[in-house]
Amino acid sequence: MSAEIICVGTELLLGDILNSNAQYLAQQLAKLGIPHYYQTVVGDNPERLKQIIEIASQRVEILIFTGGLGPTPDDLTCETIADFFGVPLVEQPDIIEDITKKYFQRGRVMTPSNRKQALIPQGAKILPNPTGTAPGIIWEPRPGLTIFTFPGVPSEMHRMWEETAVPYLKSQGWGKEIIYSRMLKFWGIAESALAEQVAAYLNLPNPTVAPYSSRGEVKLRVSAKAASVAQAQDFIAPIEKQIREIAGLDYYGADDETLASVVGELLRARGETLSVAESCTGGGLGQMLTEISGSSDYFWGGVISYDNFVKEKLLGVNSQDLAKHGAVSSIVAEQMAQGVQSRLSTTWGLSITGIAGPTGGTETKPVGLVYIGLAGPNGKVESFEYRFGAARGRSLIRHVSACTALDNLRRKLLSQ
Amino acid sequence: MSAEIICVGTELLLGDILNSNAQYLAQQLAKLGIPHYYQTVVGDNPERLKQIIEIASQRVEILIFTGGLGPTPDDLTCETIADFFGVPLVEQPDIIEDITKKYFQRGRVMTPSNRKQALIPQGAKILPNPTGTAPGIIWEPRPGLTIFTFPGVPSEMHRMWEETAVPYLKSQGWGKEIIYSRMLKFWGIAESALAEQVAAYLNLPNPTVAPYSSRGEVKLRVSAKAASVAQAQDFIAPIEKQIREIAGLDYYGADDETLASVVGELLRARGETLSVAESCTGGGLGQMLTEISGSSDYFWGGVISYDNFVKEKLLGVNSQDLAKHGAVSSIVAEQMAQGVQSRLSTTWGLSITGIAGPTGGTETKPVGLVYIGLAGPNGKVESFEYRFGAARGRSLIRHVSACTALDNLRRKLLSQ
Repeated sequence: MSAEIICVGTELLLGDILNSNAQYLAQQLAKLGIPHYYQTVVGDNPERLKQIIEIASQRVEILIFTGGLGPTPDDLTCETIADFFGVPLVEQPDIIEDITKKYFQRGRVMTPSNRKQALIPQGAKILPNPTGTAPGIIWEPRPGLTIFTFPGVPSEMHRMWEETAVPYLKSQGWGKEIIYSRMLKFWGIAESALAEQVAAYLNLPNPTVAPYSSRGEVKLRVSAKAASVAQAQDFIAPIEKQIREIAGLDYYGADDETLASVVGELLRARGETLSVAESCTGGGLGQMLTEISGSSDYFWGGVISYDNFVKEKLLGVNSQDLAKHGAVSSIVAEQMAQGVQSRLSTTWGLSITGIAGPTGGTETKPVGLVYIGLAGPNGKVESFEYRFGAARGRSLIRHVSACTALDNLRRKLLSQ
Repeated sequence: MSAEIICVGTELLLGDILNSNAQYLAQQLAKLGIPHYYQTVVGDNPERLKQIIEIASQRVEILIFTGGLGPTPDDLTCETIADFFGVPLVEQPDIIEDITKKYFQRGRVMTPSNRKQALIPQGAKILPNPTGTAPGIIWEPRPGLTIFTFPGVPSEMHRMWEETAVPYLKSQGWGKEIIYSRMLKFWGIAESALAEQVAAYLNLPNPTVAPYSSRGEVKLRVSAKAASVAQAQDFIAPIEKQIREIAGLDYYGADDETLASVVGELLRARGETLSVAESCTGGGLGQMLTEISGSSDYFWGGVISYDNFVKEKLLGVNSQDLAKHGAVSSIVAEQMAQGVQSRLSTTWGLSITGIAGPTGGTETKPVGLVYIGLAGPNGKVESFEYRFGAARGRSLIRHVSACTALDNLRRKLLSQ
């Protein structure tokens, strides 16, 4: 038993819109535990759509169509499906009445082209559209094959899915098993290195464990198939515990947690405060910290010391050290951290100075070289050097720098 | 001659990520005038991937794969393609060397699992990946069929497409008729209002004009079909000129230009400098300004005055005014702007103070209330009040606040 998502629309082939319908339906099918192995996008073309129906109807039992139900001549999904299965279309008076009423509410009159939307294959059920004018269908054109059609408008499709399609699927005995996932998040380790550490888990049948990586972050998705969320959580818990033990401090959080939120919770629990001094990130670290609602409890602010003048004036960085070691140096990173910590009277001061590129690199100080400074209680200060590599580009170097600064503070807070 | 986009990844079937790669490639193929009629998504499963290759290789001449090139065991795209065509994989020393170098730059050592990424089908060309470790291939496994593979990471894929795939396709004689577009960008006007102003242009056949809107910004895409970029530009230029005249100051730039880059160019041309004082945006305005390489020419830095203590201590905001009017008030916005301008000795000081929510709103000062302060030459200071509405949510309120601050400075610079 599996499903296939078929999205119909030339606008998808032109790249005019993102296919958010496929993502929505994929998430919904996963939640219901209905496997789906293929998604197909095809334009508003009857011949090609028929080829797609022929292929899909041989390999799955549920076909879910979105798009092509509108009133214009290029909306062909319903007639093409009926034509493929050799079944005539029948006008439904209920639909005509519904469309007329909706147009009246909007102060409009139904046009002849809207009548097209009232034509559905003989034997199909109407899948009502509470908000729009184009209804869908639920149809079993032959035993063992069920077809759902939805309009392409996401908000209309979502309500139709939730209010009619899900109850129908459950009434047919589908969706008894659910899939529940936890996304475990890691920082400071490469995807390949983590995958080797947890290699034994990557071939488990249930829960499954799959690695992902994006923008310097590595994730493991742990997904369980079970009769209920509680049972899935029971399957996942021991695996998650073991993986977290293996990963140690490289693991930082799960699901909606971010490095900024995790650092924030640690600071809040300790009643400690933080300020930042940013050079190459230009405010990106503060931006991450304040993305968390309630961050004012522990984050007091900072200084964007993009120009050296600001490093001296607002942070008290020593001008001779700036001249001798350059702005991108461990000593300047440390003085920036101490400067903001003391001026803002916070427990911690966290600083970033580096070369984000693409220009400004030298042989000894290449693009991607970043120093992070961390000033803590009792006058303790330290710094960390990173070489993120010029190839990553300005935007990613800045992002990874801000994340790595947070990660250093996180590790410090956890190891004290 | 047509292409098919095949995206490989179980994360797409689980709905974990939006398929932005399919949209990007669809747009790119449209730009090159290479038709594509199908997009397929399939999981990390060799048998099903082979079925997809069998179907697709019968109906199109160019197969474009994304995803499944990573170092982990579930990354199977390259081996499965080779296996389908019965061709052995060969380890490429060039790739091993490239991966080793990239790991070295990041201070890491290549792991054995990375070797897998150096295996490509015998006879295939390497499609170099300048930023990541997984290269793609360009391969003609049989006459009349060309295969491209790309990693799933969008930023890596985009560079590989632009730097290698496009020149290759053009060298093969594909992409003769081009579609060239200009994206005109507007700030401070609603999509519907702009669409009404330019209604006469929205039904042109060539170039076409289509409105888009996202995150507070409105865009008009002007696209021309032509034999060359120069000819397309000739079609677009008069239309663009007329639209810009209609829109006046609401138009701010085109294509890669951002509010931050446009403001930066205006400041640079005038030899003027800018500093910022941020409360609710927490660094987001500085982050936008410094996303532009070379911004140190005019942007000197700023203060993240998240806590009121910082507003007083580093910006000199009057404590009585803070107590009387609150941190979210026009008088505090003005004092923040003046404070940062004078302390950092810049031509302009730009400030933001507001309630980003979701908590912290009151009846008189609701979530979404934002004040922008602008201090300019000769002691002039002014402020602007905005009500962005709680419904937009914290992240969008912060983004729109930073953009609106830049837009105010832009209008000021243009009207002086």
